Amino acid sequence: MTVSANPLLSDRDVDFQLYEVLDAPALCALPAFAEHSRETFELVLGNVRRFAREVLFPTYRMMDAEPPVFRDGRVHTHPLLRTLYPQLVELGLLTASRPPEVGGQQLPLTLYSMASAYLMAANLSAYAYVGLTIGAAHLLEAFGTPWLREQFMTRLYQGEWTGTMALTEPQAGSSLGDVKARARPAGDGSYRLSGSKIFISGGDHDFAPNVVHLTLARIDGAPPGTRGISLFAVPSRRPEGGRLVDNDVRVAGVIHKIGWRGMPSLALNYGEEGDCHGWLVGPEHRGLACMFQMMNEARIMVGLNGVATASVAYHEALSYARNRPQGRAAGAKDSQHQTPIIEHADVRRMLLRQKAIVEGGLSLLAATSLQADLAAHAPDEETRKRAGLLLDLLTPVAKTFPAEKGFEANVLSLQVHGGYGYSSEYLPEAWLRDQKLNSIHEGTTGIQGLDLLGRKAVAGGGAALQAFSEEVLATVARARQAGVPGPWCAALEASLESVLELTMALGAMGMAGEVETMLRHSADYMELFSLLAVAWRWLAQAAAAREGLARGGESAEFYEGKLRAAQYWFATEVPRIKVLVKLCSSGEDSYTGMRPEWF
Amino acid sequence: MTVSANPLLSDRDVDFQLYEVLDAPALCALPAFAEHSRETFELVLGNVRRFAREVLFPTYRMMDAEPPVFRDGRVHTHPLLRTLYPQLVELGLLTASRPPEVGGQQLPLTLYSMASAYLMAANLSAYAYVGLTIGAAHLLEAFGTPWLREQFMTRLYQGEWTGTMALTEPQAGSSLGDVKARARPAGDGSYRLSGSKIFISGGDHDFAPNVVHLTLARIDGAPPGTRGISLFAVPSRRPEGGRLVDNDVRVAGVIHKIGWRGMPSLALNYGEEGDCHGWLVGPEHRGLACMFQMMNEARIMVGLNGVATASVAYHEALSYARNRPQGRAAGAKDSQHQTPIIEHADVRRMLLRQKAIVEGGLSLLAATSLQADLAAHAPDEETRKRAGLLLDLLTPVAKTFPAEKGFEANVLSLQVHGGYGYSSEYLPEAWLRDQKLNSIHEGTTGIQGLDLLGRKAVAGGGAALQAFSEEVLATVARARQAGVPGPWCAALEASLESVLELTMALGAMGMAGEVETMLRHSADYMELFSLLAVAWRWLAQAAAAREGLARGGESAEFYEGKLRAAQYWFATEVPRIKVLVKLCSSGEDSYTGMRPEWF
Repeated sequence: MTVSANPLLSDRDVDFQLYEVLDAPALCALPAFAEHSRETFELVLGNVRRFAREVLFPTYRMMDAEPPVFRDGRVHTHPLLRTLYPQLVELGLLTASRPPEVGGQQLPLTLYSMASAYLMAANLSAYAYVGLTIGAAHLLEAFGTPWLREQFMTRLYQGEWTGTMALTEPQAGSSLGDVKARARPAGDGSYRLSGSKIFISGGDHDFAPNVVHLTLARIDGAPPGTRGISLFAVPSRRPEGGRLVDNDVRVAGVIHKIGWRGMPSLALNYGEEGDCHGWLVGPEHRGLACMFQMMNEARIMVGLNGVATASVAYHEALSYARNRPQGRAAGAKDSQHQTPIIEHADVRRMLLRQKAIVEGGLSLLAATSLQADLAAHAPDEETRKRAGLLLDLLTPVAKTFPAEKGFEANVLSLQVHGGYGYSSEYLPEAWLRDQKLNSIHEGTTGIQGLDLLGRKAVAGGGAALQAFSEEVLATVARARQAGVPGPWCAALEASLESVLELTMALGAMGMAGEVETMLRHSADYMELFSLLAVAWRWLAQAAAAREGLARGGESAEFYEGKLRAAQYWFATEVPRIKVLVKLCSSGEDSYTGMRPEWF
Repeated sequence: MTVSANPLLSDRDVDFQLYEVLDAPALCALPAFAEHSRETFELVLGNVRRFAREVLFPTYRMMDAEPPVFRDGRVHTHPLLRTLYPQLVELGLLTASRPPEVGGQQLPLTLYSMASAYLMAANLSAYAYVGLTIGAAHLLEAFGTPWLREQFMTRLYQGEWTGTMALTEPQAGSSLGDVKARARPAGDGSYRLSGSKIFISGGDHDFAPNVVHLTLARIDGAPPGTRGISLFAVPSRRPEGGRLVDNDVRVAGVIHKIGWRGMPSLALNYGEEGDCHGWLVGPEHRGLACMFQMMNEARIMVGLNGVATASVAYHEALSYARNRPQGRAAGAKDSQHQTPIIEHADVRRMLLRQKAIVEGGLSLLAATSLQADLAAHAPDEETRKRAGLLLDLLTPVAKTFPAEKGFEANVLSLQVHGGYGYSSEYLPEAWLRDQKLNSIHEGTTGIQGLDLLGRKAVAGGGAALQAFSEEVLATVARARQAGVPGPWCAALEASLESVLELTMALGAMGMAGEVETMLRHSADYMELFSLLAVAWRWLAQAAAAREGLARGGESAEFYEGKLRAAQYWFATEVPRIKVLVKLCSSGEDSYTGMRPEWF
């Protein structure tokens, strides 16, 4: 078995998204990004591409094959992490998008997203330690006391320690309001924690001396439900008298995950011996609210993961299809050489579908990240507010589309490999396993559907959808200008119109108190909204491709490929929006009408 | 981790398919089945259900966890097989559907299919040894010389030895015409074989003394391509002088499959030492034709496997959803107990979709098997011919729908289990791995699409489709009579009409020599035809459910569930047929227009 020279993502495509579809360098006109330019973007991407391909990707298979081992109460991760993690830190990833005050470079998220996609595609588990550590540090940066920032945040950002998000408990997964872990004031400003957490990614390892768990727990006497949960920083080893001492956070077991096998997922027990200390982060009882302020970014990262995992598999399938001879064109003689399978129409269909999903998804993530940058850093309040609404609206879609359709793409990558794809000698099955997590963690697909339809699409009295509509129509105008086929433009306009109407009708239903009826088809709504959002991104790409063709130059084949993939999306996926809109608005009640005892 | 009391398939549903949707006992009016009756059906099913649940299912996880090991040139399979295989033989499975002349019971395939689905759902690898052995023995029964039948077939049917199908070579998978294995007359009536095979399921093991490989090879001097391939019986140990001697078939390696892990998939080398003997089965150069005569049945078995694997996972998800508390209904107070997740609309959607796929698929397999029984055993030529056309038409659909949509159902079963579903402590991920093979072996989904559109749908100058159309319209008439909602009946009629028109248009294109254009959308055609065929089965089930409700009795909840699942199919899947018909007839050319270098 040899590892192919897999590019992970297409550099040409990433550049296209940043510089041709979007104008990401224009962000450098904002004061926050004033130190940057297209040149710094290229420098960052260059470093990341090299590291991802030369260092990180070659470790993926080894880490997948040898998952962490739980022995003598401690988790032993793959030895490679002892050298990989410092290198990831060295690359500047932990603080790349953070401000100079905490030692960061303050790169736009738009750029950081594209860069991190390479690392995720190369070895998502190795990168996940970085992602989790950033998340923990960022919470401390936003809500921590100066002492917490100094003691914990700094060490996390410097790559000395790592972080986790310790939310889930056996009885509290999607239902975080049911968290039972307890916290009692210890009298010294800290709290004594007790309880159990499960599915804690990176909860223990042996490549750094400490892990800080950002932990949800309930202070004794707190109100029940979501409004009584607080956030704590709970290190595995706590600073005491100038040194680190054991903090009574025990590994209770390792989950045997089917993917992400370079990173342990653990059950943790807090305070078995009554000696677990944690420090409150943010106000009492506001833990969920603090956590949710980081949610958009965390979900964008999951979406990128989905795109990255589908992308690396797509490139593997593409290479295989170009090199695997099997069969002949219709009418060819038996005595002729076999043809590479990419010549078969059905193989090309499978590859084109993967391309449409991967590059459509990447474009959606880039566009969503751009709104995050504007929401955080645009100088004027109005722009920030509008971008915030768009960010909120697009985030559940940008999280879910890559998880669901990206999984389909991963299935097709395996299928292109035929019988070989069914063996662990080849990589597609590993990426298939990895991808499956993305529809589950950081809010399942079902939860995202409820969030999208029940909150985001009706947010601001329709202002979010209005802003989205403006963005789509601006893209249509650009596409018409660029000479993109008229029927695609018209189809996107008509689809948008029908989705707006549907949303208004469903919103009105919710206002009238018929919430269950409104939300009955939230999964179908998520699907149709995803198809629409990605159609928007494919129209934008088609416009940029036509502009590129008009300019002439060396990229003609690249642009032709973009136009075919856009054609594919408009021919195969856009017509489904109408079917789904009809389903959502028909009053169809098979799911809710099906009583549990009838199954 | 505990294994739940998983029913594998719903007994009530299997009975419904056999006795209410179809009238399978009516087959006993045919002379071939005259010895049978509903009583013998129930006896067979009773034995199989008990064995599958009590003996076979408890072994599944162990065999998945400990795949075969290749050591000292031999494959060592799970020790449990030494007791399981004789028990499977004892159950009468090897000859259940064979005639009395070879020691069989001559049960209708319609019954045998339903019975084997339980065994596949319980432990598909263990059952696969049975399936392969039947296939090999059946080829010898049909085409073997009396000596071959006596020496090999009898021992296979009696369960003394096992069999394989040795077709694939590294360069010849979908393209069997490229088989290179060689056969030279040995002068004693046998041939000397040489060459390499790959992906040979059950190609070696240690629970029986011999394995007979039904092997495709090319006799020296044979014409190139598919018309120069012959079929041979090649035992691992050959009979010589009244005993078995080594026959120079060597295991070259074990494929590390991601599923079906109770059964080895091997690379085999024939005649490394020039001492491998094989015996010709059927006429010279007609090996593929012989093999293809068994193809319908083999593909029906793959379809059943898909249904069975989706079914066992569906029942696991159903049980989990009934027992897992998480979250509350909208508007409920935090202080209330959490509700079982089956109460959430989106979980019910996921379960209803699984039910619709599993039971719709089972119904399609039962109906297809019924045509196989009529094609083989109807007394009059005309009925046999018509049933043969229907069987040929339905087989690729009955193979592909469960593989593709069954996989989707398996994904949903995992998703219902949330984070737990992502761990190998729970079973859904194992069934997901198992299911994935079904879109690859016995002809990939791409190959099935070409077969359906390029051959089967246009067979007999339209006679196959005409017969299908009559069947569908008869079901519509029955449904109207039973009071099934009129819009479902009308939707099925309209869909049928549009598919007939499309097929005629595409067929005309093929006649005009535009084969590539005709077949461009063969995968889309397969999908729309599957949706139509399963809609036909759901309308038949709705009709039987309405008839059942009219009779009254204890099954009202079962019938209501059937009607909801039918409603689901007509609301969500049937409208997609129109979209796909339009795609196939639009001249849309993104797949074929996308040049390889544009990716």
